[in-house]
Amino acid sequence: MKSEIIAVGSEMLTPYRQDTNSLFLTEKLNELGVTVNFKTIVGDRRKDLVNAIRGALGRTDIVLIMGGLGPTEDDLTREAAADALSLTLKRDAPLVAALHARAASWRMTMPENNLKQADVIEGATVLTNPNGSAPGQWLDVTFEGYRKILALLPGPPSECKPLFETECLPRLRAAIPQRFIAKRTLKAAMIPESQADKLLAPIYQTYPDVETTILAHNGDIQLTLLCSKNNMEEAQQRVDELASRMEEALEDWLYSSDEESLEQIVLYYLGLRQATLATAESCTGGLVAQRITGIPGSSRSFVGGAVVYSNELKTAFAGVAPELIEKHGAVSEEVARALAEGIRARTGATIGLGVTGIAGPTGGTDDKPVGLVYIAVSDAQLTDVIKRNFRGPRQRVREWTAQQALDLVRRRLM
Amino acid sequence: MKSEIIAVGSEMLTPYRQDTNSLFLTEKLNELGVTVNFKTIVGDRRKDLVNAIRGALGRTDIVLIMGGLGPTEDDLTREAAADALSLTLKRDAPLVAALHARAASWRMTMPENNLKQADVIEGATVLTNPNGSAPGQWLDVTFEGYRKILALLPGPPSECKPLFETECLPRLRAAIPQRFIAKRTLKAAMIPESQADKLLAPIYQTYPDVETTILAHNGDIQLTLLCSKNNMEEAQQRVDELASRMEEALEDWLYSSDEESLEQIVLYYLGLRQATLATAESCTGGLVAQRITGIPGSSRSFVGGAVVYSNELKTAFAGVAPELIEKHGAVSEEVARALAEGIRARTGATIGLGVTGIAGPTGGTDDKPVGLVYIAVSDAQLTDVIKRNFRGPRQRVREWTAQQALDLVRRRLM
Repeated sequence: MKSEIIAVGSEMLTPYRQDTNSLFLTEKLNELGVTVNFKTIVGDRRKDLVNAIRGALGRTDIVLIMGGLGPTEDDLTREAAADALSLTLKRDAPLVAALHARAASWRMTMPENNLKQADVIEGATVLTNPNGSAPGQWLDVTFEGYRKILALLPGPPSECKPLFETECLPRLRAAIPQRFIAKRTLKAAMIPESQADKLLAPIYQTYPDVETTILAHNGDIQLTLLCSKNNMEEAQQRVDELASRMEEALEDWLYSSDEESLEQIVLYYLGLRQATLATAESCTGGLVAQRITGIPGSSRSFVGGAVVYSNELKTAFAGVAPELIEKHGAVSEEVARALAEGIRARTGATIGLGVTGIAGPTGGTDDKPVGLVYIAVSDAQLTDVIKRNFRGPRQRVREWTAQQALDLVRRRLM
Repeated sequence: MKSEIIAVGSEMLTPYRQDTNSLFLTEKLNELGVTVNFKTIVGDRRKDLVNAIRGALGRTDIVLIMGGLGPTEDDLTREAAADALSLTLKRDAPLVAALHARAASWRMTMPENNLKQADVIEGATVLTNPNGSAPGQWLDVTFEGYRKILALLPGPPSECKPLFETECLPRLRAAIPQRFIAKRTLKAAMIPESQADKLLAPIYQTYPDVETTILAHNGDIQLTLLCSKNNMEEAQQRVDELASRMEEALEDWLYSSDEESLEQIVLYYLGLRQATLATAESCTGGLVAQRITGIPGSSRSFVGGAVVYSNELKTAFAGVAPELIEKHGAVSEEVARALAEGIRARTGATIGLGVTGIAGPTGGTDDKPVGLVYIAVSDAQLTDVIKRNFRGPRQRVREWTAQQALDLVRRRLM
């Protein structure tokens, strides 16, 4: 079954906003075995909307339209969908009553134009929206001789997503031939994308019935495996078999066989080992601490850290000897080691992490170019220091460095 | 003039990837006075591609297609565009020679399928791509009786953007009626979106010839003013006049009349006052430090800071008395004040910032709910503390808190 997602709203045709609901809808449709063949973004112009809806009905079987269901003059999805299908709109008495009741419960008088939201396309099923005033609509119709499913959904993600899950998913499952989809996600850190593909392609190519997607971003690799079969057991078995072969090939690059982030895994191992972590960051400027503290409950294993941008703070907070900085420079193996050992000693944490480097765009020299970083991990037994040269603009160097630092902590904990 | 942007690539129809090039192209088109009426995302299927291109030619004047120009079997944009226009593809001898020369310069033998990239649609102008092997193509054609402009562009942003700027923009300027577009961007912090609109709508509504866009995200408001006229002076005058009336209305909510970020403005004022900043963050966990250190050159004014997640570190790094924490709790006006004053004293910075709060989702009580934060700013003269209650999930509370903290520093410096 083919589908198209239409996102309605002129703001999504500016340079500043993007549709994001469609990513969620795509995931849910794929899990039903439905392909998304097109996504269209169209503004709040009735003629353009009718054109987009007719186009979508002509080329796919299932059309999901998000947005344009509110009470303002710009909200034209109901009218345009009715035009596209040559059907009429009728004001629905129970919906009118519900709108009045909703306004009354807020002690407000309802503006007349709010009643637009009670207009229902002839033959449509009303989809109750508990999170907003505009209901959705579901149509199972014939268009140019073919059966088509058309759903109108509200635009705000907090309304669109629950309405789709509770009202549309069961109807779609009933309407389309049943398929069972098994899914697995593997995650690996710091393996170059080309190396991952060289390692994995010979494996996943022997599973043509499993759709494998590789995504790489700043040192993080995500592998998604999807398999659609007539029964769940068979689909799950194929996905699990491929996953376990890929896990073996990835060796210790692999950090998760589920959807956890690298910082979640680091916190998981810290908890398991009853260990705590403290950080002393220079070039990443708090990026490592920020990723860790983004996870609920991180306070159990993360005691905190220092952002030691100036040389004075490297001394004051991590006890780095000024002579060491003078002799080797702030960006050096020795200072990274002293940062990790010093922050560990100062905070009493089980593990200390030290990061120093040149994020750029300026500050590089022939000896120490932009992108040079040293990362050290220290515990009661030993301190490891690694050196890396990352390329690209400041933010990229910082993000690769933070990813590498977290991965180094993970490897120490394993 | 109406336009449509088509992004080609099956990966953009997965739940994991989005087209982003279109935001850049939209900005450039708008600056020429061209509206983007539709954006379409289509996969690497020839039939779907032909359908999307024909649809776009039927409903707009200018069609930009990105992606699908590489050498693999999945790269079908050339073939599909030729089909849609009922034109033929011809292999271009100079392009074949250039591809051979490129491969030779890398000491590689060129695979046969690479030659696809030398196929040119009858009547098209070849757009030389200095950043990749696939050239673009430019067509000025008649479709169903109307003049249409169609451009084929490579997909990777590093190729698409420069090629569009150097090869397409001058051709578009020559092809469409000349308009002059003036633009201004104003930015404000921590003003509620509804209040901003209430304040500004009566002003911008009296300038119907200026398109005003308001975007709000986590305490940051961006106002974009665009005006298109037959001469630049008049367009600029209208935009400047509206901008200065809006600046006045926004009073000190306004932090930039250009496109700087809040952290850039904070660093600008720190430089101006020859002042330095240090931070002691609890619930934001390094988010404030990370935003500041994301700006090149921030080391001149930002000495660093501490991520004081545990109570012990609040004492060790910011000198907060343990009795103070015991008496008032870690999330309190007193502890925020002590963090700001303590980090300032420990680091010798001109200004100290202290942040403490409950980011959630757990850890809240009736007295101190999730979202409660205290932020303090301290200099040689005085320490200010503010209390806020932010709503929503952990990441939202953290981001609003970081924005509020930076804004408090800005206000102290003004």
